[in-house]
Amino acid sequence: MRPRKILIANRGEIAVRVARTCRELGIPTVAVYSSADRTAGHVAACDEAVSIGPPPARRSYLYVPAIIEAALRTGADAIHPGYGFLSEDADFARICAAHGITFVGPRPEVMDLVGDKARVRALMAEAGLPVLPGSDGAVPSPADAERIGAEIGYPVIVKAAAGGGGRGIAVARDAGELREVYRATTALAQQLFGDGSVYVERFVPAARHVEVQLLGDASGAVIHLGERDCSLQRRNQKLVEEAPSPLLPDDLRHRLGAYAVAGARHVGYTGAGTMEFLVDADGNATFMEINARIQVEHPVTELLTGVDLIAEQIRAASGERLSLTQDQVTLTGAAIECRVNAEDPATGFRPTPGLLTVFRPPGGPGVRVDSGFAQGDRVPPDYDSLIAKLVVWAPTRAQAIARADRALAEFAVEGPGVATTIPLLRALLAQPEFAAGTHTTAFVTDYLTRTPVPTG
Amino acid sequence: MRPRKILIANRGEIAVRVARTCRELGIPTVAVYSSADRTAGHVAACDEAVSIGPPPARRSYLYVPAIIEAALRTGADAIHPGYGFLSEDADFARICAAHGITFVGPRPEVMDLVGDKARVRALMAEAGLPVLPGSDGAVPSPADAERIGAEIGYPVIVKAAAGGGGRGIAVARDAGELREVYRATTALAQQLFGDGSVYVERFVPAARHVEVQLLGDASGAVIHLGERDCSLQRRNQKLVEEAPSPLLPDDLRHRLGAYAVAGARHVGYTGAGTMEFLVDADGNATFMEINARIQVEHPVTELLTGVDLIAEQIRAASGERLSLTQDQVTLTGAAIECRVNAEDPATGFRPTPGLLTVFRPPGGPGVRVDSGFAQGDRVPPDYDSLIAKLVVWAPTRAQAIARADRALAEFAVEGPGVATTIPLLRALLAQPEFAAGTHTTAFVTDYLTRTPVPTG
Repeated sequence: MRPRKILIANRGEIAVRVARTCRELGIPTVAVYSSADRTAGHVAACDEAVSIGPPPARRSYLYVPAIIEAALRTGADAIHPGYGFLSEDADFARICAAHGITFVGPRPEVMDLVGDKARVRALMAEAGLPVLPGSDGAVPSPADAERIGAEIGYPVIVKAAAGGGGRGIAVARDAGELREVYRATTALAQQLFGDGSVYVERFVPAARHVEVQLLGDASGAVIHLGERDCSLQRRNQKLVEEAPSPLLPDDLRHRLGAYAVAGARHVGYTGAGTMEFLVDADGNATFMEINARIQVEHPVTELLTGVDLIAEQIRAASGERLSLTQDQVTLTGAAIECRVNAEDPATGFRPTPGLLTVFRPPGGPGVRVDSGFAQGDRVPPDYDSLIAKLVVWAPTRAQAIARADRALAEFAVEGPGVATTIPLLRALLAQPEFAAGTHTTAFVTDYLTRTPVPTG
Repeated sequence: MRPRKILIANRGEIAVRVARTCRELGIPTVAVYSSADRTAGHVAACDEAVSIGPPPARRSYLYVPAIIEAALRTGADAIHPGYGFLSEDADFARICAAHGITFVGPRPEVMDLVGDKARVRALMAEAGLPVLPGSDGAVPSPADAERIGAEIGYPVIVKAAAGGGGRGIAVARDAGELREVYRATTALAQQLFGDGSVYVERFVPAARHVEVQLLGDASGAVIHLGERDCSLQRRNQKLVEEAPSPLLPDDLRHRLGAYAVAGARHVGYTGAGTMEFLVDADGNATFMEINARIQVEHPVTELLTGVDLIAEQIRAASGERLSLTQDQVTLTGAAIECRVNAEDPATGFRPTPGLLTVFRPPGGPGVRVDSGFAQGDRVPPDYDSLIAKLVVWAPTRAQAIARADRALAEFAVEGPGVATTIPLLRALLAQPEFAAGTHTTAFVTDYLTRTPVPTG
């Protein structure tokens, strides 16, 4: 049954994004907001709004009692968690269920399975997916880590089992480094995720980050909507995402889709999710992780397929079938998403919150902007620095790059002390490696070490 | 050969639209502006800008010497005329050619042929298109008009042969009215177009306005990109356009496409153009006119096909082939364009120029906005009142209607004395006749006579 009212337990562009689909589906929405977000765009985008606490996330957007209370008080019978915050918290999903509230996401048991990034490797291997040589689950001690390092060969990568969003990841080039990295990552994981478990895998140095969009419903149907390439990253933070992945051979593209569906079926996945893969220089793909949420970069898939992924999430959570079958998925043209952040590349990407005295997003053909801000708004210092996602579509990748550059050039953002990543994004899109599509996840860091940082 | 630099002889959203494609193609642009448009959006959208005169169009945007001089001075070797102003002026196209400037449009001879709306009826009949019973060319006297009226039966419609944009059109229900209408339309046509010729056709009372988008190139290739339905009109001014045309049977859809291509081939059409048809309650289609320009509503076709029509115009004018063949044209989903005008439906659609203290166009999935304005700009009183085109795409028409309503609700426009058509557009989209797709060109007028006008 469709929800009568949906509470959106998030803020910023993704809360606005979810509210838009709810409006189109005729489902009333409830915003929640911290005191830093009283006048934020996502509050205006919803039909009702409930104040849930002070700016620190753990006291508002992560504070479960306030969010559940807001849902009960407003009569919201479903909660969409967006990404980040509570979106991958299986316990939160269970608490929702205990209160008769539909959590718009996979079932909690599935979230547990895929949330343990050490364990999910074994599950995906069972389902026939290629996984990197590495530890069999979490690694209990530095000595165990060293033993595995010796077995699989260096460099290795140490990752927080409960991690996500590119945090809690470090590379070790030898046994000495591994001991140090093990300790540091364990401590960081404990601090970030409340769980110090880490696992170890062989590190793939010059790889592409390719992920497949999944949808599943309660009938057991699982489909994929093609891949996204997120190789343009800095410190595991994506800057630009695109679809299709350039230079990916068609047979590998089909194999990744089949892997993703097989892996999702194996764990009984429902709703929207992403299967992440590394593709090395020789075209070998290996499973990386499953993200049990809608992702920041989901619009590139929406532009290629015409499918509203938020609407499919709501269908799946309501027990309905997906609106389309695998045969009905068509992928047309090329899409590129640029993350416009209020941060200054010239000062180590320091966030630059402040008043947006000018905020004029671009428009015209093939341009989509998802943002939680408008001219006159203030970017608060309390949250991530994403102020807009600029997403373009065109028939070909070369045309999409030209369109992205045109739209970035149009995008006017000004304010006292406010810098953005727009000049850097334009510079990156103009690099020959990007045009050729030969860039790997190392590209942005290489570029930044050899080039004066573009600012503006 | 591609132009080295394009002067855009227009203003407002269409000048911005053309500049966007030029940027994406890497072609520098020159804006021209009247003194009322010194700080207008289209000036900022171009690489250079030339002041061409005072606000009255005949002294600036229609003042050929100033525009040619601006092109020569800036080294622009092509002129894109947009729509309106000089876009259908064959003499202007000839003057461009005489100065070695490429006019982005059909050849002047073809513009002459299709610009004479009385004569083009005969040409299209030759090409096998169904035309309404009516006069054989222009009607020289009221007595001749009456003779034709008696022949074809009343009501009849009297149209200016040199007309366009829905002006210079009137209906007569009997011989007495026809005499009066003939005189009035002749006088109006003389005043508006400098040519008092009129022609007479049978009037089709409850019809749909369906038009087919055409593209032709110098090699003789002519293709169509499907139809648009523009039945939501008030006094022959389109308010909402959509594609595909709802309820149009597939065989008629294909026949209209074939008619359009046959008619365009018959006159040697090149560039972008539109073949307009009336479809009556019994599904009979008859040729109405050819518009030898890019049209306001071209984005709905762009959203269904993924084709950049401005880029195709530039290709065709450069002597290149179109970027696609008829077989490569695919029409996907449904698109709706809403014309957001700064005018007040409650006061007879009086224009409401003024300062836009708030101007926040909508965003998110499936939403495109083409506008020449931004927050803080002033809408001058000198030109048409179109401040933005909101165009949405969705997989189905019902979803597109929901999306258009969502986006219209998001669209915030405020300013002292500024009213917009947004509330009326939302009300029209919410009517059961529109949802059913059964509305004709009479629908808006009927609606306005039976309903208090929504304002806001």
